[in-house]
Amino acid sequence: MIRQSMLTLDARPRGFHLITSEVRQALPDLSGVRAGLLHVFIQHTSASLTINENASPDVRSDMEDHFDEMVPENQPYYDHTIEGSDDMPAHIKASLLDTSLTIPIRDGELALGTWQGIYLNEHRDHGGRRSLVLTITGSTGDETAT
Amino acid sequence: MIRQSMLTLDARPRGFHLITSEVRQALPDLSGVRAGLLHVFIQHTSASLTINENASPDVRSDMEDHFDEMVPENQPYYDHTIEGSDDMPAHIKASLLDTSLTIPIRDGELALGTWQGIYLNEHRDHGGRRSLVLTITGSTGDETAT
Amino acid sequence: MIRQSMLTLDARPRGFHLITSEVRQALPDLSGVRAGLLHVFIQHTSASLTINENASPDVRSDMEDHFDEMVPENQPYYDHTIEGSDDMPAHIKASLLDTSLTIPIRDGELALGTWQGIYLNEHRDHGGRRSLVLTITGSTGDETAT
Repeated sequence: MIRQSMLTLDARPRGFHLITSEVRQALPDLSGVRAGLLHVFIQHTSASLTINENASPDVRSDMEDHFDEMVPENQPYYDHTIEGSDDMPAHIKASLLDTSLTIPIRDGELALGTWQGIYLNEHRDHGGRRSLVLTITGSTGDETAT
Repeated sequence: MIRQSMLTLDARPRGFHLITSEVRQALPDLSGVRAGLLHVFIQHTSASLTINENASPDVRSDMEDHFDEMVPENQPYYDHTIEGSDDMPAHIKASLLDTSLTIPIRDGELALGTWQGIYLNEHRDHGGRRSLVLTITGSTGDETAT
Repeated sequence: MIRQSMLTLDARPRGFHLITSEVRQALPDLSGVRAGLLHVFIQHTSASLTINENASPDVRSDMEDHFDEMVPENQPYYDHTIEGSDDMPAHIKASLLDTSLTIPIRDGELALGTWQGIYLNEHRDHGGRRSLVLTITGSTGDETAT
């Protein structure tokens, strides 16, 4: 079976944000999936997705600091500057991180590790709302050996 | 349903290249898929795939400049130098970017955002032709609630 | 059809390690899949997965050297330091690389390129055992045009 839906996330400030519970709440069919995969896709090129630690907020602010250091604004070799100094670094960060995530589903739950959460990474200073496409492929019955 | 096919891309110069329309043309079955996923896999370790801005060519040349800065040639700690100074950086860039992409399909179309395109990232000076494996999983009928 | 299983990897030293044959051996059903996808997911945030060259061990040690250079320990902007100097860099490397891989299956085999192998990237000095979730989606019959 395949289930597909859209999820619009409210605008968030620049930085790394936990969205695991928001994604879960958008998946009413999850509990009926015995074995499968959830695919999460972000329809933008200046924000991205990743999976990382779900506990300490310091991890998320250190991620922001490190990506700003690895991909600085105002580099002399940037030609794509018309949309602001945060724009070209946002595109590079989006490709270094991920435009989509695939997460296993097992017995009606996302099979994330204990410390794993889903992050929305907002790379623009004023990114606005962000659109996700959620797709579940899976089996609901007993035909799947797990 | 599952459809799988191969796509061979002509040799391109080192850099980031838009291949969205070439991938679409290799998928005659796409229009019949109501909800599903396209998986694109590159069978190489010195070229890669990513999704990024489909409009300004400056984004693609700035990506090339930045990845060359982040992953320079001729670093003193490289031991794998026998295949040329562009080889080890190509392997690192391939892992920083992506060996595969998964893109949602919705009502017979790739559900890319307005500004998203598929890039082939050629990391070698003379990389030659590149082989992709394209796999569609999806539903053609009314059983999928979308 | 969907098949899902767990694979626990023994503890490995910090660095990049080839695990292709270990993953293959954990997939007894692979040979019956005519066309499909293998999804490999690591349930941790300080180790990761990638696909890269399967031949020269120098590639794997150069990867370790370069990621240590790109994501150094003891940066002044790290606040998340309580779990050791290798911890925050491990989280960043895990997001730069991958938490999951998707690999096509074709005629009962992983459709990897000649030089491609699956890497486990251990980013901690003492990371311990690592848990993977393996999910195969695919077709066993003749209904798939390939």
